[in-house]
Amino acid sequence: MTPEAAYQELRRRAREEALLASCADLLEWDEETYMPRGGVAHRSDQQALLAGLMHERGTDPRWGELLDLLEASPLAADPGAPAAVNVRWLRREYERERRLPRALVEEDARVTTLALEAWAEAREDDDFARFLPWLERLVVLARETAAAVGYAESPYDALLDEYEPGLTVRRLEPLFASLRAELVPLVRRIGEAPRRPPAHLLHREFPVDRQKLFGEAAAAWLGFDVERGRLDVSAHPFCTAIGPGDVRLTSRYDAHDFAEGFLCVLHEVGHGLYEQGLDPEEFGLPMGEAVSLGVHESQSRLWENFVGRSLAFWEHVFPRAQAVFHDALRDVPLDAFHFALNAVAPGPNRVRADEVTYNLHVLVRFELERALIEGTLAPADVPAAWRDAYREVLGVDPGNDAEGCLQDSHWAAGLFGYFPTYTLGNVYAAQFVAAARRDLGDLESGWRRGQFAPLLGWLRDRIHRQGHRWRPDELVERVTGAPPDHGPLVQYLAAKYEALYEL
Amino acid sequence: MTPEAAYQELRRRAREEALLASCADLLEWDEETYMPRGGVAHRSDQQALLAGLMHERGTDPRWGELLDLLEASPLAADPGAPAAVNVRWLRREYERERRLPRALVEEDARVTTLALEAWAEAREDDDFARFLPWLERLVVLARETAAAVGYAESPYDALLDEYEPGLTVRRLEPLFASLRAELVPLVRRIGEAPRRPPAHLLHREFPVDRQKLFGEAAAAWLGFDVERGRLDVSAHPFCTAIGPGDVRLTSRYDAHDFAEGFLCVLHEVGHGLYEQGLDPEEFGLPMGEAVSLGVHESQSRLWENFVGRSLAFWEHVFPRAQAVFHDALRDVPLDAFHFALNAVAPGPNRVRADEVTYNLHVLVRFELERALIEGTLAPADVPAAWRDAYREVLGVDPGNDAEGCLQDSHWAAGLFGYFPTYTLGNVYAAQFVAAARRDLGDLESGWRRGQFAPLLGWLRDRIHRQGHRWRPDELVERVTGAPPDHGPLVQYLAAKYEALYEL
Repeated sequence: MTPEAAYQELRRRAREEALLASCADLLEWDEETYMPRGGVAHRSDQQALLAGLMHERGTDPRWGELLDLLEASPLAADPGAPAAVNVRWLRREYERERRLPRALVEEDARVTTLALEAWAEAREDDDFARFLPWLERLVVLARETAAAVGYAESPYDALLDEYEPGLTVRRLEPLFASLRAELVPLVRRIGEAPRRPPAHLLHREFPVDRQKLFGEAAAAWLGFDVERGRLDVSAHPFCTAIGPGDVRLTSRYDAHDFAEGFLCVLHEVGHGLYEQGLDPEEFGLPMGEAVSLGVHESQSRLWENFVGRSLAFWEHVFPRAQAVFHDALRDVPLDAFHFALNAVAPGPNRVRADEVTYNLHVLVRFELERALIEGTLAPADVPAAWRDAYREVLGVDPGNDAEGCLQDSHWAAGLFGYFPTYTLGNVYAAQFVAAARRDLGDLESGWRRGQFAPLLGWLRDRIHRQGHRWRPDELVERVTGAPPDHGPLVQYLAAKYEALYEL
Repeated sequence: MTPEAAYQELRRRAREEALLASCADLLEWDEETYMPRGGVAHRSDQQALLAGLMHERGTDPRWGELLDLLEASPLAADPGAPAAVNVRWLRREYERERRLPRALVEEDARVTTLALEAWAEAREDDDFARFLPWLERLVVLARETAAAVGYAESPYDALLDEYEPGLTVRRLEPLFASLRAELVPLVRRIGEAPRRPPAHLLHREFPVDRQKLFGEAAAAWLGFDVERGRLDVSAHPFCTAIGPGDVRLTSRYDAHDFAEGFLCVLHEVGHGLYEQGLDPEEFGLPMGEAVSLGVHESQSRLWENFVGRSLAFWEHVFPRAQAVFHDALRDVPLDAFHFALNAVAPGPNRVRADEVTYNLHVLVRFELERALIEGTLAPADVPAAWRDAYREVLGVDPGNDAEGCLQDSHWAAGLFGYFPTYTLGNVYAAQFVAAARRDLGDLESGWRRGQFAPLLGWLRDRIHRQGHRWRPDELVERVTGAPPDHGPLVQYLAAKYEALYEL
């Protein structure tokens, strides 16, 4: 067999795996958006079957044969060439997949579908006890996964590595420590500032149907192709790429909270732009896939915060918002609106958190889930540990579990090791924006005129089209000239909020 | 291996097949309801992969081993016992599946997804030429399928048998000839009657959002469990059962045509009630599946027409309709509304056809698709043949292809041999209603009070819960005491319309 023929077979197999995975993705999207309640047991069986099938195909020894042949061939010689990238990352996936027993993979798919339903009910009724047996099962499954995959220091490392290749507790601890050291004093100074944002303006009446239309319009302004995607409503906003040409976003809307729904839309649009920017010719192959959750989150946070909370963006968008939400906004000056949108106030909720406190929410989750996986925290003790951590780090009390440890769906979905990528996303985003400014010059003058295409083009070229060409930390260094570093994020936050609050 | 162990393995395999098929069903539902346009190429690849996987698993020789063992065991001795039913029908499916080459199955799945998209565009632009290459490919595929499956007299028989086991051209020809002989004179007498229905009343303004809510309410009144299903909008209404607890209906609405949207809802509700009435314990097995499309259609037509166009039904529902559509209906007397809903007028459209002319639409399709499959009609000649047949049988001219041969999606979906089951459904429905009246006494007095549960309970018991226990014609004979017979349908239509039109 020639290397070329082996490579074609490898591509075909990888694409088929991705096609099957995309069927599971559609089932999950449907579960979160339109599935009737009665469908959950059947959906759990469907997901378990697909997970089992994918695992069976993903562990076929034929992968090993093809990869052995290709790794020794000239096709894999240049590490930056697409074929070499695909071979390298498919090897990684194959080795990881092979270590997982099929029964564990199926059990995981089945349990998470049911656990998500239980979590939704538990959150609705503020009843942690109903979710507890599921959380216990999920932690056991995550620990079994970590043990099967293998790790050097902490079982939590095995989970981190799934979402952010190469990430470890050893790398995360100093990052969170530095952020905490910089951000806690900034939050305190802001809290003591005499200047207060008119946050109440964003809690006037913003009809939900208008918010939906306005969100769709905003998605299009930023460059999201609505013919190749859609925007729906779900309890927990997300973005999922079913395939090239079919990228789906969701948001949630509250008639008395404009910021939450709109910023959620921009956040998911950021994810969607990354997915729409991938190379469709490489669909299903590492060269055509997002490189990591951290880089994914850098895209969502960039559009949500660096663009969507900027004054320049609103100079363009605010008159449009006033036209749609006339009753709520006609008497509001732009600078008051902008200040309200950037109000900093420690609260119990991560998704609704401002830019400054956001990473402290992630810090709490990182410490708790690491302890769960390392076995130093029992699932039953999560509510108390959560409250203690929020009091200590953010100085707030969630009041109840629905607004506390039940607020996020991640654990119910079996996603341990996922939260830290949110903070990495913020760190990367600050570095990317600084680099884009270096390459493109002043960005804000374009935003003021509704021109987002230069920035999007830069991201497409430097990041989206690179797929898995480089490891996330290598990508950051190639694009920005520096390795991952919290400095630019802290400098951005300090400069922006010192000016806003006149510190 | 004991027969009991073999039977458990057979059940497990059949359920897994059904689970995989239900993933494909959800993909199809999504394609018709929410999928963005850009997703169609990827969807086609997904469906081809799933079809190939299902075929690969469905033709595993292990089926043959298990079936051989079970057919010779006491489990298969009593033909009406669930195990015997499952063994008998799974043998039929396995033999059919084995005869189809995998490449044909995958090609069929891929082509129909793309052809449906082309058909929708062709219909929108009244451009048959755009659909023609797809129709040609689909006819070739259907003929290849018939050749692979095998048949005694006509290749069309091999296709009919897929939807209505045991049905042949030889059985259909006299049925359609008798209906034509009885219905054409009835249509003529109605056309000459001096009494005319006030059809314009149903073309007043009926806001679409209110129609949707009213349709959902009506579904619940008839007994459709909305916690275990949903109702959406699609260009071509349909019902699909994703699984027990997840039965989905669609309808379409026109603000100036109350009858079309509402009767579509009742029609799909009828299908949905059958699916919700199946035995969930037997999901994925013949005992837990609808026995044929003809019997399925008998359920939809029964609720749509025998109930939903009856005066008794509207004595209960009309005041509710007046409350919701106050502007359109407040000055309309019940009997005028009822007469308008039962207006008989030959037209070009099947879905919007009245009860009397409906089967003549099916007759046209039967003759044309039979000719396509037997090779006596070229796809390019369909538009002309369609117009000729409509002029001859119904005395109308469709005017254009969008309202003519492009009106239905069936051929684009590769469904040749499907249309005749619509007429069988009408025939069976008339027989079932007569039998229910014999068993339950007067039905209308309950409908007048909104009581549909006795009829639904009777259908559940006699038909839904029987699954594939008997062949469709055997089922009709067991439930009604007579084999399939067009007599009751003709008598029902003659009696109802002679009274309405005072013939």
